[in-house]
Amino acid sequence: MTKTLGVIGLGLIGGSFARAAKAAGLRVIGADICAETRKMALAAGAADEVSADAADAAAADEILIAVPVGEMGGVFAALRDSLPASAVVFDGGSCKRRPVLAAAQNLGGKAGRFVPSHPIAGGENSGFAASSADLFSGSRVILCPADSDADATAAAENAWRRAGAKTAHMTAEEHDEIFAAVSHLPHLLSFALVESIRARPDYAELLSYAAGGFRDFTRIAGSHPAMWRDICLQNGDMILAAMARFRRELDKMETAVKNGDGAALYGQFSEARALRRAWLDTLEK
Amino acid sequence: MTKTLGVIGLGLIGGSFARAAKAAGLRVIGADICAETRKMALAAGAADEVSADAADAAAADEILIAVPVGEMGGVFAALRDSLPASAVVFDGGSCKRRPVLAAAQNLGGKAGRFVPSHPIAGGENSGFAASSADLFSGSRVILCPADSDADATAAAENAWRRAGAKTAHMTAEEHDEIFAAVSHLPHLLSFALVESIRARPDYAELLSYAAGGFRDFTRIAGSHPAMWRDICLQNGDMILAAMARFRRELDKMETAVKNGDGAALYGQFSEARALRRAWLDTLEK
Repeated sequence: MTKTLGVIGLGLIGGSFARAAKAAGLRVIGADICAETRKMALAAGAADEVSADAADAAAADEILIAVPVGEMGGVFAALRDSLPASAVVFDGGSCKRRPVLAAAQNLGGKAGRFVPSHPIAGGENSGFAASSADLFSGSRVILCPADSDADATAAAENAWRRAGAKTAHMTAEEHDEIFAAVSHLPHLLSFALVESIRARPDYAELLSYAAGGFRDFTRIAGSHPAMWRDICLQNGDMILAAMARFRRELDKMETAVKNGDGAALYGQFSEARALRRAWLDTLEK
Repeated sequence: MTKTLGVIGLGLIGGSFARAAKAAGLRVIGADICAETRKMALAAGAADEVSADAADAAAADEILIAVPVGEMGGVFAALRDSLPASAVVFDGGSCKRRPVLAAAQNLGGKAGRFVPSHPIAGGENSGFAASSADLFSGSRVILCPADSDADATAAAENAWRRAGAKTAHMTAEEHDEIFAAVSHLPHLLSFALVESIRARPDYAELLSYAAGGFRDFTRIAGSHPAMWRDICLQNGDMILAAMARFRRELDKMETAVKNGDGAALYGQFSEARALRRAWLDTLEK
């Protein structure tokens, strides 16, 4: 029998996963609260059926929840009753401790069917319009299956691999600490820089001189506000810890600028450049 | 008679300008303290003659100084005696008040021949190896000619246009304030973020999960340490003012994260995204 995938949230992540599943021959039921998005997904052939109701995507072999992390509790509750005992549920959220908690609180005895997962893919463009069947091709997906049933974990792993991704395992705690530092904090800094310019009466003139460095630094400030609000609310403690570390380094640089301490600035810039270049080299391998 | 260009500093900016001048039929005398760089520039046909001594590039119609801004005073002093009265001198530095002062202090009666200029081009790759004849094609060059002779300003403007750039005028003060906000501060933030990760014992593991957002945010942390040290030393007051504005916005976001204030976070992220998107639209026009 043809395997069925339910996708709840047909944005960049959900839409891309649905397209990849269709390409692999699955039947796809898509759910999204936005009528326009449902229409686009059907028209693009990314889903065989669509619904405004998450529960309609529950009767499937695999279910991907790809909504802002703040909405996952409600989705789990909507799925619980119609979820087949053998189904696997996984998500695409950028933080993992709170989704684990939401599953425990809202999936009842079926919480072991949930395999927390975070695809390291996507960018500042969001929505179904930005989705593509090869978004996950060659990318990494972090799984945090400490509380998941073993067969559910294996099924989730297979599903992500089918979409072209490589998988890695860690605890939800490790995940949230790592991504606070390498992803969540940079997003906040980028949003804050743009806001610091927006607060000026002459912002339009300033921006007319901004160039490639500014464009790349602020690319992530083009990201989805509701998604990032939820991440900040759900991973606040880890983000604050990463921010405290960042402020220590920023304070050092500010002091060096105030004191005209060229040696300190040169040292910090050289170290940072060397580390970034070494990291880039590992990517290119 | 063939026009002669002297280029002092054959890095990304100097090397690219030399290549563009050669393509336009000029004779080019290049000066660089690095023997390897001189060899590369000759071999690439970017210069007809090279020297380790900046003074050897003084006997020219146009002279581009493209060294880290902290070295400009010494270069002006080296040029002064052999500089023809009709020559025009311009630079490629990223801050402008201190180079103006350095010219006044070191060029004596010839200070009016200096036309402060800042090409908004280049990136984190530095050195002659990264240079190209079309680096300035379509880019903007800011001129700050308040203290320059009118004919020198016209000549500098023509020289940049010959390389394909569009020119704009402002005061050195305006320049330094604008670029502190849209360029210098983002560089510091990017360096500081990388340093905050480097300071952790687990930095290698963290970086192994960093992705496209991190890569773009930290691209400018790959920039030339001596160049950025000099910019921080020469434009410190404006950078500190921009940093204070940034800290106000970061403080607001930190407070919102601490308080779990989703509405505040959503508002800030939405505003930042809207402004950045509007800015991108102006670029695409």
